[in-house]
Amino acid sequence: MTIEIAIGANLRKSPYFEATLRAGAKNFSVYNHMLIPGHFGDPDGEYQRLMTGVAMWDVAAQRQVEVTGPDAARLVQYLTPRNLSGTKVGQGRYVPICDHDGYLINDPVLLKLAEDRFWLSVADSDIHLWAQAIAQEKGWQAQVGEPDVSPLAIQGPQAEAVTAALFGDWVRELRYFGFRETTLDGIPLVLARSGWSKQGGFELYLTDASRGIELWDRVAAAGAPFGIGPGAPNDIERVESGLISYGSDMRRQVIPADPFEMGLGGLVDLAREDDFVGRAALQRIAARGAARRRVGFWVEGTPPSPGHAVPVQLAGEPVGVVSELVHSPRLGRTIAVGLLRADLTDATQGLQAALPGGPAALQPTALPFRP
Amino acid sequence: MTIEIAIGANLRKSPYFEATLRAGAKNFSVYNHMLIPGHFGDPDGEYQRLMTGVAMWDVAAQRQVEVTGPDAARLVQYLTPRNLSGTKVGQGRYVPICDHDGYLINDPVLLKLAEDRFWLSVADSDIHLWAQAIAQEKGWQAQVGEPDVSPLAIQGPQAEAVTAALFGDWVRELRYFGFRETTLDGIPLVLARSGWSKQGGFELYLTDASRGIELWDRVAAAGAPFGIGPGAPNDIERVESGLISYGSDMRRQVIPADPFEMGLGGLVDLAREDDFVGRAALQRIAARGAARRRVGFWVEGTPPSPGHAVPVQLAGEPVGVVSELVHSPRLGRTIAVGLLRADLTDATQGLQAALPGGPAALQPTALPFRP
Repeated sequence: MTIEIAIGANLRKSPYFEATLRAGAKNFSVYNHMLIPGHFGDPDGEYQRLMTGVAMWDVAAQRQVEVTGPDAARLVQYLTPRNLSGTKVGQGRYVPICDHDGYLINDPVLLKLAEDRFWLSVADSDIHLWAQAIAQEKGWQAQVGEPDVSPLAIQGPQAEAVTAALFGDWVRELRYFGFRETTLDGIPLVLARSGWSKQGGFELYLTDASRGIELWDRVAAAGAPFGIGPGAPNDIERVESGLISYGSDMRRQVIPADPFEMGLGGLVDLAREDDFVGRAALQRIAARGAARRRVGFWVEGTPPSPGHAVPVQLAGEPVGVVSELVHSPRLGRTIAVGLLRADLTDATQGLQAALPGGPAALQPTALPFRP
Repeated sequence: MTIEIAIGANLRKSPYFEATLRAGAKNFSVYNHMLIPGHFGDPDGEYQRLMTGVAMWDVAAQRQVEVTGPDAARLVQYLTPRNLSGTKVGQGRYVPICDHDGYLINDPVLLKLAEDRFWLSVADSDIHLWAQAIAQEKGWQAQVGEPDVSPLAIQGPQAEAVTAALFGDWVRELRYFGFRETTLDGIPLVLARSGWSKQGGFELYLTDASRGIELWDRVAAAGAPFGIGPGAPNDIERVESGLISYGSDMRRQVIPADPFEMGLGGLVDLAREDDFVGRAALQRIAARGAARRRVGFWVEGTPPSPGHAVPVQLAGEPVGVVSELVHSPRLGRTIAVGLLRADLTDATQGLQAALPGGPAALQPTALPFRP
């Protein structure tokens, strides 16, 4: 189904937008009110490039919520159930963000830039509004805003080689989620070992939007000897790897889910002495146990992706949800991710996905998928 | 520029989605994380239909933030600077929503369904997260959520005739923003005299998503004798009429603007005795005067729409912003809306829009545009 996107004034353009058009972007989605490339005309080739080579992605739509000020650390710690007490400047942390009812409303990476300066590299919801409301209602001395920061990702097995060619061998020493403020030919950025794939890589958090095209071209040139090409966050790879996609796997107002259900219970520290958003609700959920659990599903046959979540049924009763379904080239099978009633084991027989074209048999399995 | 939209699991589909595809939707945007039709292949004809006949629009992406509970009225009143004390059940109100810094973060219509039940029919930002955070931090007994409500708009000079044919002549008595809970062949909905155009019309707030296709078809059938056809919120008409588009004209993190600048100062009641979000900031702004004012611009020539905001300059200095530029068939000219430094009158000569293809001369004018 080929449908155009309306490129109106209401949708923000990334600093790399013109460069991605020039590179052949054929398809865009919208994330944090910003256009984000979907593919460049060769989805199969772009998947292979991520799995075996190196790809560059415009992920500027992964906006930063910056928290600064004397109470910045206190606010950030209040916003997540994760205990951040051991986090040092230069370290990143994956931090579930829950609302006061204990439901996930985002799952950003937190970057600690200074003792009083943090970025939340957010998924697709308006956390800046939510965080500012909390800071102000608390009366805390913390400013919340969205700075001029636009990540460009380099992902794939050859990503380290490309990034080392750009910045030097010191990047090889960066630990996962570790980052450093630096420059590239005078272009200011924060370089982090991170990215929304399990193929390894880096993200270049450009801090001057006026230099987006220059950075894009610089990365393309340095990556050329390694066969770099344009791509985008890849739904197939993320389902294979079991990465969470806020907006697809859960969204507060569509598929409400708590961190225990999503497999993030290990990041919820109920032993903390300080209060945090959602604490009482999360304590209740922990006490009774999660209602569902996050699983992979082997899907029978090759049904097309429905493009939206569908119910999982057992003997006609709803027992879960398939949030995304893809065909895996690597596994040679149709696979999916979703949530399943917690009492149902991976050995459960008779599960079905209620797909638009008719039911498809499902077999649960642990994530990430293994051949 | 023809670019596809990626219809992925992360973007919600409206209950009318399949019906709009069947009706020939060629182009979609994204609003509140939901697909919304842009046009149906005949933008000029769709504009004319709105101006002279009647159109039906899938505006399900205009989501409802429902506030209920003993403190619902108190919360809603706290969320907006507008004084709601005279608002009765069955009445709607246009309510600016500001953050604690006094910047607009949405401009919904508020529907008072009961003394303890309200809908905010929101523009494109996650007000449900923001409002719930405030309710919870206040410790108030108010629940905030997104109910199963999906508006379908009937707009244009013939809209009243179509709506009367569907519901009966009582709809002719509804005042602007007045609404009533009713049914159509058993389909539950709230019928309001409202809609995002100045051509008159109604919105059918469907409250059972499973009946979306049925409602769409029912409206199409009743409208057929009046020449109804599919359409979408129309950027040309809204610029001509001076309607505000949150996300285009202003957005907290892109074009921050306060209600005084946007011409909404009359809805800010600083004489209220109760506190509300942004009060202190709005008092400061009121005391010093708005920095900019909302204006229309006559644009020289027929430059193409840039698809994003551009600076307004005077002798090379930035003095404002053009947020959207269109060609008006009705006026036979290129027009735009935006913000201009408050000390510059409509008689100011030498203003220019810094368009990608080169500067274009601007002459400010009052909104709405008049021939």
